[in-house]
Amino acid sequence: MLTIVVDAMGGDHAPACVIEGTVQALQESGNRFKIILIGQSEKVEPLLAKYDTSMLNLKFLHAPEVVTMNDIPATAVKTKQQSSLVQGLLLCKAKEADAYVSAGNTGAQMAASLFVLGRLPGVLRPTIYAYFPRIGEGLTNIVDVGANVDCKPENLVQFAEMVTIYQRYGAGIEKPITGLLNIGEEEGKGSEVLKQTYRLLKEADSKGKITFIGNIEGHDILKGRATIVVCDGLVGNTILKFGESIPEFLGTLFSQSLEKLLSSGQFTPEIAALTTSMFKGMFEPFDVEKFGGVPFLGVDGISIVGHGRSSSRAIKNMIYMAEHMLERRVNEHIAEVLSEK
Amino acid sequence: MLTIVVDAMGGDHAPACVIEGTVQALQESGNRFKIILIGQSEKVEPLLAKYDTSMLNLKFLHAPEVVTMNDIPATAVKTKQQSSLVQGLLLCKAKEADAYVSAGNTGAQMAASLFVLGRLPGVLRPTIYAYFPRIGEGLTNIVDVGANVDCKPENLVQFAEMVTIYQRYGAGIEKPITGLLNIGEEEGKGSEVLKQTYRLLKEADSKGKITFIGNIEGHDILKGRATIVVCDGLVGNTILKFGESIPEFLGTLFSQSLEKLLSSGQFTPEIAALTTSMFKGMFEPFDVEKFGGVPFLGVDGISIVGHGRSSSRAIKNMIYMAEHMLERRVNEHIAEVLSEK
Repeated sequence: MLTIVVDAMGGDHAPACVIEGTVQALQESGNRFKIILIGQSEKVEPLLAKYDTSMLNLKFLHAPEVVTMNDIPATAVKTKQQSSLVQGLLLCKAKEADAYVSAGNTGAQMAASLFVLGRLPGVLRPTIYAYFPRIGEGLTNIVDVGANVDCKPENLVQFAEMVTIYQRYGAGIEKPITGLLNIGEEEGKGSEVLKQTYRLLKEADSKGKITFIGNIEGHDILKGRATIVVCDGLVGNTILKFGESIPEFLGTLFSQSLEKLLSSGQFTPEIAALTTSMFKGMFEPFDVEKFGGVPFLGVDGISIVGHGRSSSRAIKNMIYMAEHMLERRVNEHIAEVLSEK
Repeated sequence: MLTIVVDAMGGDHAPACVIEGTVQALQESGNRFKIILIGQSEKVEPLLAKYDTSMLNLKFLHAPEVVTMNDIPATAVKTKQQSSLVQGLLLCKAKEADAYVSAGNTGAQMAASLFVLGRLPGVLRPTIYAYFPRIGEGLTNIVDVGANVDCKPENLVQFAEMVTIYQRYGAGIEKPITGLLNIGEEEGKGSEVLKQTYRLLKEADSKGKITFIGNIEGHDILKGRATIVVCDGLVGNTILKFGESIPEFLGTLFSQSLEKLLSSGQFTPEIAALTTSMFKGMFEPFDVEKFGGVPFLGVDGISIVGHGRSSSRAIKNMIYMAEHMLERRVNEHIAEVLSEK
């Protein structure tokens, strides 16, 4: 039976939401896996006591320290060795657990995962991707979204290969399409790094490691021209955060418009209510909580990274994602493909 | 009196829209400037004949060649010397005109402007910015949006300085705020180029050349935390094109929702019509045609670049922008500030 460590202290709504999501995952799945909930006992145990956990495959482990959003990623692993983050990852390293799940400080989780778990054979740099809505079926994956700011062509190609493997084996998308984010479609566009990356992506395509459709541009992301959009961490992080700010921005525009129409009498309160409910429904494609989080791809172990504002539903789905990665042997596939010459 | 050259052949709706916008600018302004319309006589003259131009400060000039969207920017200036693009810029170089306006091939216009007009004293690399909607008053300027893919710190700082000068003297914004687009807010974030740029922007702030608020992130763009967002051309171009694709994407989501609500009977056709008109109104902030285009900043002359899909209104406003840059002596200010050590 798989053992998944869940960081009770990670996330804006921790530990309450994390506990709730963990209990739900075990109840819903019929105790399909074992969960070790790790965190500060004085904060976690009173909340955990509200649930009847006697029938659940759940164990609580005390970790006295907490890595907060203000901790510096690179140093947290050294200064907070008794944190749920470091102790949780050490359980994975010691093979006492199979996966680690957290919605805490993303940078610290990436740094600690790399430090404690190390890299898979053949991987130059682990990476993190994000989900994006698109026109039509499915979602777009953008990689990298902040783990690697300066990227070499060989890094970018490995990112495409790793996400392709995750999508193929983890998500069951047989032929995910990779596009290279550039300032124009034509081959030969962009910086030297992008030109060289283009050549390496073509090579990876000819070896069957990825399916490459060439350069794509910013307007192709929402159109869904590619399943996997490759770019460096600065571009990806900016697009991700920009995208996340769109619903709020439009919500403000919507409220301003609605107020005007109501006060001028063009809209009745009934029409306003109908329109508001329609507007909310429109943003359903922006709901990426169904995935909960994303795996930190390329580390020698499973470390699932969640959004700070994760709900209990997101936590639950992150636990399922960890299970999924283990069952589909995603890491074994990554090591195999990336070790090939 | 100022003389402005307008490229009759530039843009998706050229020459009809260009002619219409030119005539409107002269009529509306009461012949405040002189316009030289340049392009292929067989295409322009029949359309121009539809207007009574006898009272307008308008002259037509024949240029037998046309630079199309398919021409390679770097070579068009050499292979199409008899084009409206090259001939129009040569008029500026020869001081027979004061500014050049076009909605044609942006890359070719930038390359030709740099080649024909040269750089202003002190400018390392000319740049191009874009307008972005934001919460509240005003607009955000993103710079660079594609003229420079690989940027050195000293280039990025000059971009901030040039847009600051344009906003201060050209647009009357006394204290435009500059933010450096990065993966996090804290000083010390990002690549070596970004860290060095941060230091140089602080230095430029202490000299009073710009007002710098530090690093900003993708979600700060629509929030309007900065008036000027500095990034390299790949990041800026991607954000620009991504942003331009949002209204279409949301339009698709809107239509899909509306169809469902109509077919299920939750919305009557009357409510659907009201909601549709409200939705359209919401996107008014995305209307950047009021500016028409943007100046190619840093070249020794005035070259206004418009969007391919420019309407006659956009063309008209580009002509006003050229007038504005001349009257406010924006280029003189750029040369002065960027030549300072």
